[in-house]
Amino acid sequence: MATLPEKRVAKIFEQIDRNKKIKIKPDIILIANDGEPHIDYSFFYVTGFPKGLFEGSSLLAKRNGEISVFTSPLEEDIAKAHGNGIEIYVFRDNEKEQLRKVADEPKIVGINQRDLTVSSHRKFKYVFKGASFVNVEEALSSARSIKDQIEIEAIQKACNVASRAFRDIPSIIKEGMTESEIAAHLAYEMQMAGGSGIPFESLVSFGRNSALPHYSAGQARLKKGQLVLMDYGAKYARYCSDITRTVIYGKASSEQERMYQLVKEANRVGIENCVPGMTGAEVHLAAAKVIDSTEYKGRFIHSLGHSLGLAVHDPGPGLSIKNKTDLKPGMVLTVEPGIYVPSLGGVRIEDDVLITKDKPRVLTSAARELIVV
Amino acid sequence: MATLPEKRVAKIFEQIDRNKKIKIKPDIILIANDGEPHIDYSFFYVTGFPKGLFEGSSLLAKRNGEISVFTSPLEEDIAKAHGNGIEIYVFRDNEKEQLRKVADEPKIVGINQRDLTVSSHRKFKYVFKGASFVNVEEALSSARSIKDQIEIEAIQKACNVASRAFRDIPSIIKEGMTESEIAAHLAYEMQMAGGSGIPFESLVSFGRNSALPHYSAGQARLKKGQLVLMDYGAKYARYCSDITRTVIYGKASSEQERMYQLVKEANRVGIENCVPGMTGAEVHLAAAKVIDSTEYKGRFIHSLGHSLGLAVHDPGPGLSIKNKTDLKPGMVLTVEPGIYVPSLGGVRIEDDVLITKDKPRVLTSAARELIVV
Repeated sequence: MATLPEKRVAKIFEQIDRNKKIKIKPDIILIANDGEPHIDYSFFYVTGFPKGLFEGSSLLAKRNGEISVFTSPLEEDIAKAHGNGIEIYVFRDNEKEQLRKVADEPKIVGINQRDLTVSSHRKFKYVFKGASFVNVEEALSSARSIKDQIEIEAIQKACNVASRAFRDIPSIIKEGMTESEIAAHLAYEMQMAGGSGIPFESLVSFGRNSALPHYSAGQARLKKGQLVLMDYGAKYARYCSDITRTVIYGKASSEQERMYQLVKEANRVGIENCVPGMTGAEVHLAAAKVIDSTEYKGRFIHSLGHSLGLAVHDPGPGLSIKNKTDLKPGMVLTVEPGIYVPSLGGVRIEDDVLITKDKPRVLTSAARELIVV
Repeated sequence: MATLPEKRVAKIFEQIDRNKKIKIKPDIILIANDGEPHIDYSFFYVTGFPKGLFEGSSLLAKRNGEISVFTSPLEEDIAKAHGNGIEIYVFRDNEKEQLRKVADEPKIVGINQRDLTVSSHRKFKYVFKGASFVNVEEALSSARSIKDQIEIEAIQKACNVASRAFRDIPSIIKEGMTESEIAAHLAYEMQMAGGSGIPFESLVSFGRNSALPHYSAGQARLKKGQLVLMDYGAKYARYCSDITRTVIYGKASSEQERMYQLVKEANRVGIENCVPGMTGAEVHLAAAKVIDSTEYKGRFIHSLGHSLGLAVHDPGPGLSIKNKTDLKPGMVLTVEPGIYVPSLGGVRIEDDVLITKDKPRVLTSAARELIVV
């Protein structure tokens, strides 16, 4: 029986062989982490190591299924405890020799240009002198975009933890509290419920701040009548969830209510269209139409969603106007329409959705009804 | 009066001109973020933007002081609100044209190989056809390693937030609680006290787990007599703190107490030696000697410390056997000796230290005395 790392490596090579843009096919792939923050999550896709930083560690995977990890004494115990058939090489000053010995004069080395630093690339060009390097980024991305059962379960758990944390929000929100305090509550609840941490600094924004899609959480204090937008996620076994809910504090104005209902409808239409055979562009357009056919035309200023997995913005096709490829069962995507009005604020509702053969499976279960606290 | 971005760019060019390894001197530097997690913190060193992700954004800085940022509509408001004299270009489909126009046929472009992805590098080689690229990583690292007043204040605040969170730990720790729950408490307290988030997943480990320096926080439950190691930090205005404290739950064994006192002494000796003129290697050796001259010889298995700033592992010289350069006023370093005994656990005590002309200034104030909860 193939081990999990072997299965995933086989999936990557299958995508390499299928990809017409990769003209010269490598027999070995190199995945390399540099120092933080330059970690290639594909390293964890292949190894499945549940813990550890693995800065400066690398991985060689051969077409014949042989997988080797090169790491420092700092991660030795974790790597060996979760080896799962992988050969573990612990280097001190002999990393280059170990790599050369295992790779055995490779001719064509597949690399992931998207996550490899120029520094690391130079190092490996020196280590594997005489080898050619080909970019297998697209094949890695295709392999990672179709999640297997273990990945889906981890994402589901990350979604459960995030959905549950939202339940307490109405009882926590009080006049005068800061955006940052709400972010602190969310992170705490998620970690107490089994999350290992948060994949990005939670975006909690009040009033006008909520009209800035990438505003994080600051020291603004909550006032009556403000929109409260919370875009946050949890991590579980290295996998991410990403959810957004918007509530209104005090009393909703008719405009806030109208914005909310439109975004909710766009979210529903987006999710409904997440079925195999639709392209990312088609799903985006279907949801965008709900907003753009109203007085809020032009107020939905980003794409509808992105792939989700080991990274919050996982490689793989998103729900954007640029993506003309078909959705496939096993993909996990966010669906996050929004309306942003600079003087007033923004409403965004984001869910995480698994594409299946049939209907989309929504992994986030937090209430989507308008909540006025 | 020069703006903050102008001063920092001038400091980078000064280091470029001084660095003998950079033989061909560029007149323009390019700093480029790719998608998360591939962010070059130097982008924020130059701009000082307090918020925003700035994925896919880049920066051109010319020797004449002209600084331009290229970003997407998602970050437009934040960039413009904190422009500080920087020219802000918001691109849609015209990024390449904008870059070419501003750079104006550059001959030599300085890049930061350490933080640039191979993908981005390819893009810029295409955009600036005919230009040569030189690696200015070392100059950037030297500039960033000497912190200015604004940076020191941010790090001090990040340290205050982390130190304060430790105060409640003795009252929070209870038998049967999980490592992850302690991590949740620490993160919550830090964010409630004004921190913007945590720079890395807190390493909280009980008993034997504490002998693994890179073990994070899991579901192990606390038992009497265990070591509780907490390595965590806060972020404040993008700057990091990084602190470790080890307490004992229940009753300390004589071995635990001995380990603790040795590590505390190594920490004290390390800090005391953080003065200008000492090399990183000398400081490491002075502290390591405290441990290696006892029965715990060989149980201190990592270097004594690293630079701290926008990144937890900031570029710049660390307190390690490899660093033969002198410490200079303005450097901020961690001092974190440890003793790790596989069957029993580990003790580590880590503080953040600012090098000054005179005595080192310890930025972390959490108690260093042995605490038995």
